[in-house]
Amino acid sequence: MDFTIQNALIATQDDYITQSVRFIDGEIRAISKEFDQEDVSVSTLINAENQLLLPGFINAHTHSSEMWQRGIMSMFPLELWLAELYDFAPLDIEKVYLSALGTAVETLLSGGTSVVDHLVLIPGKELETIATAVRAYQEVGIRAFIAPLIQDESLAAGIPAGDTKQNYEPYFRSTQATLDIIEEATKKFHNPDAGVNIAVAPTGIQLCTDALFQGCTELSNKYNLCRHSHLLETKAQEKLAQEKYGCTAVEHLQRLGYLDARTSLAHCVHLTDTDIEILAATKSTVVHNPLSNLRLGSGIAPILKYRQAGVNVSFGCDGASSNDSQDLLEAIKIGSILHNVTDFDYQHWITPRQSVEMAALGGAIGLNMGDKLGSVDIGKKADLVLYDLTSLSLLPRTDPIGLLVLGRPSNIVNSAWVNGKQVVANGQVITIDVDNLRQELFKHSQWQTKRKSKSVADLEAHYRLVMGL
Amino acid sequence: MDFTIQNALIATQDDYITQSVRFIDGEIRAISKEFDQEDVSVSTLINAENQLLLPGFINAHTHSSEMWQRGIMSMFPLELWLAELYDFAPLDIEKVYLSALGTAVETLLSGGTSVVDHLVLIPGKELETIATAVRAYQEVGIRAFIAPLIQDESLAAGIPAGDTKQNYEPYFRSTQATLDIIEEATKKFHNPDAGVNIAVAPTGIQLCTDALFQGCTELSNKYNLCRHSHLLETKAQEKLAQEKYGCTAVEHLQRLGYLDARTSLAHCVHLTDTDIEILAATKSTVVHNPLSNLRLGSGIAPILKYRQAGVNVSFGCDGASSNDSQDLLEAIKIGSILHNVTDFDYQHWITPRQSVEMAALGGAIGLNMGDKLGSVDIGKKADLVLYDLTSLSLLPRTDPIGLLVLGRPSNIVNSAWVNGKQVVANGQVITIDVDNLRQELFKHSQWQTKRKSKSVADLEAHYRLVMGL
Repeated sequence: MDFTIQNALIATQDDYITQSVRFIDGEIRAISKEFDQEDVSVSTLINAENQLLLPGFINAHTHSSEMWQRGIMSMFPLELWLAELYDFAPLDIEKVYLSALGTAVETLLSGGTSVVDHLVLIPGKELETIATAVRAYQEVGIRAFIAPLIQDESLAAGIPAGDTKQNYEPYFRSTQATLDIIEEATKKFHNPDAGVNIAVAPTGIQLCTDALFQGCTELSNKYNLCRHSHLLETKAQEKLAQEKYGCTAVEHLQRLGYLDARTSLAHCVHLTDTDIEILAATKSTVVHNPLSNLRLGSGIAPILKYRQAGVNVSFGCDGASSNDSQDLLEAIKIGSILHNVTDFDYQHWITPRQSVEMAALGGAIGLNMGDKLGSVDIGKKADLVLYDLTSLSLLPRTDPIGLLVLGRPSNIVNSAWVNGKQVVANGQVITIDVDNLRQELFKHSQWQTKRKSKSVADLEAHYRLVMGL
Repeated sequence: MDFTIQNALIATQDDYITQSVRFIDGEIRAISKEFDQEDVSVSTLINAENQLLLPGFINAHTHSSEMWQRGIMSMFPLELWLAELYDFAPLDIEKVYLSALGTAVETLLSGGTSVVDHLVLIPGKELETIATAVRAYQEVGIRAFIAPLIQDESLAAGIPAGDTKQNYEPYFRSTQATLDIIEEATKKFHNPDAGVNIAVAPTGIQLCTDALFQGCTELSNKYNLCRHSHLLETKAQEKLAQEKYGCTAVEHLQRLGYLDARTSLAHCVHLTDTDIEILAATKSTVVHNPLSNLRLGSGIAPILKYRQAGVNVSFGCDGASSNDSQDLLEAIKIGSILHNVTDFDYQHWITPRQSVEMAALGGAIGLNMGDKLGSVDIGKKADLVLYDLTSLSLLPRTDPIGLLVLGRPSNIVNSAWVNGKQVVANGQVITIDVDNLRQELFKHSQWQTKRKSKSVADLEAHYRLVMGL
């Protein structure tokens, strides 16, 4: 596959130039003002006049199957929200497939070329769930980091006990059985060259034992897998860490050896200054999910502090039940301007160009692929996106990246390539039949309003008590 | 004009029912499960199967001509941002026209049927500016509240003096001359039945004398005009009010008699509890502009407190230089979930149905039209919107209003009527040639990155000093 994108607008340090970019076999080979037409005679030529070329963004944290409950989840904090979510998640393999397709399509059409799917597994069908997501992402052609969501403690263990005495059911599957599933999935599906990556992904300190974190760390070392977890999303988790460990969650994870340059941590809302130093020292990445953090009332992650401390930050949409979309541009916009109210000195605020760098290179670094993804440079993978600057939502013409990040662009991704393969053309995903997907999503669902979650009824009084409500 | 929308999904107290709605001569006349086909034989029938019918939202605060600088404004707090904005606003009448069209189109395609344009006037061409906005909004067919932005103090007066001694140039036009312009505009253009309303709109306490507020109050009383101002958007304004009046801005405006049920106040970020009581007692409306408040770092308006105190709240996009879009659904989403991080008790959080009520009825009340707009009820004006629930961004099917408010819907407005006249059909604005508008916006602008604002250079050191930066 040999493509030449001609006359695209490309960002320089603080300006734009019109350049042509040639990529062969998935890799960027040349960038130049223009190429000799004879040289590129075997290349597929793409006219990119009035289009902006950017590296693909990374949707660095999501849960694809949550798409089935977007729009209907109650206005709850995480712990109760999660109880409701699980009560109404009678997932089947077909739904896993469709929501992975949907997640990939929304990510691609908002500038993403990679997705980290912290994938909820159907009990008893764990490998089949993973295989289904692999199939969906390969069909769409998005670069996938499938991070099977694992835990080895039951849901109620995720709420602090406070002064009460809480007893929990043991989790239905042993720690070792869970680790075996991940190892088998790795052997079967982990294939970075084909754009399919398996990550170890213990959900977080709230529902995982040390043994699970240690087992995951071993698998990560053995197979060079990324590590992906939730971290200190809520006040309840902050409290729980102290109950469980007598120290912060970050301090504990560092002691376990879980934190390194392959570790990306979703949320990171409630960290101490010492925790921040640990993230910087271990080169861990913070995945910022601003919309989910607002919707669940988790708080505002101290992103400006992370940046000042040298911690790598990327953006995620989080699952569509807590967002309730998979539009990366929305996450990038809100995840950037939100912090202007946390620091009165505007000289610390994130600029649109910095946002783009966080979303692309920041995402790549968090997946240990900073040398291969995240910028338009020779030798990097051709994960590229062309934005149509003649779209109404990007007009009048001013600063293209400013319009893209700070506006509310719609229908603006003209073309996208992943690993050099074109997946979006003329504003449409061309690898799958999106209209058919739309019809399937319609067919497999119905409008509804009234749901009563039994688990919420069981947990709510204790939650309010222990959280002082 | 006689339309019957058949089989639309309509929200009831806590559910949905399928209903048909007939409106004649701009007014909703009947709502029923179904109509006798003979009865509606003279009516234009609209098949609304799989569509959600809602009252049109109100874009309750914007500045249309800011569209020319969206995407390029520096990351500054309001006071410096404003200095940059005015340095690069060499507006001409043609641009005023095009950006009013653009503002109307983006508002309509995100569910709005009314716009409050706090319109920046071209010096020396004040009436022509207003006439141009009137023309644009009438061509598009959106209900317009044109609130000519007036002041009678110069820009530098808007920054607190602190311990320094500041001298300002007098404003170029006298208070009386300004009031004369507004009275003339009222006589010429104020025509509520035709959907064109003039409002008195002193920009805010930071740049207006008491004489201007009092003159505006008199005009409002004489012609029954709405009153529209910015209020306590920034910490600097809070400080300035104390310097100017020795009390809060709200206390001062109440004494001046400016606050009543026709008064809508944009921002209201920095109010005291007493101020909030005054707003409730005077039945003033708060217009929440969450995206602008974040982008400019103004703060998070205490919207949950307003709601608890019984203050009416509506949503605005604010001008496109501080947002940088005119998508009402984005403002509604962020303006709802943002507050979940300000109050840990989730029982106070805004639900999607409440958001819709704020955006529609709340907006109408703020314009003194709560009896005529803002709900789908017999006797109300037919300002209505049909949303296509088969759109990919509203699938899978769950709770339609939840999907609309909490998702990131795109291309979802199928049809819209203003005053019973159809302005959107099949997802397209049908009253003007939008593709031509797109080309005009492109033609009248160019990509740019580097701008240096002289006014910012003049003001910045003083701003940092007085704000303790």
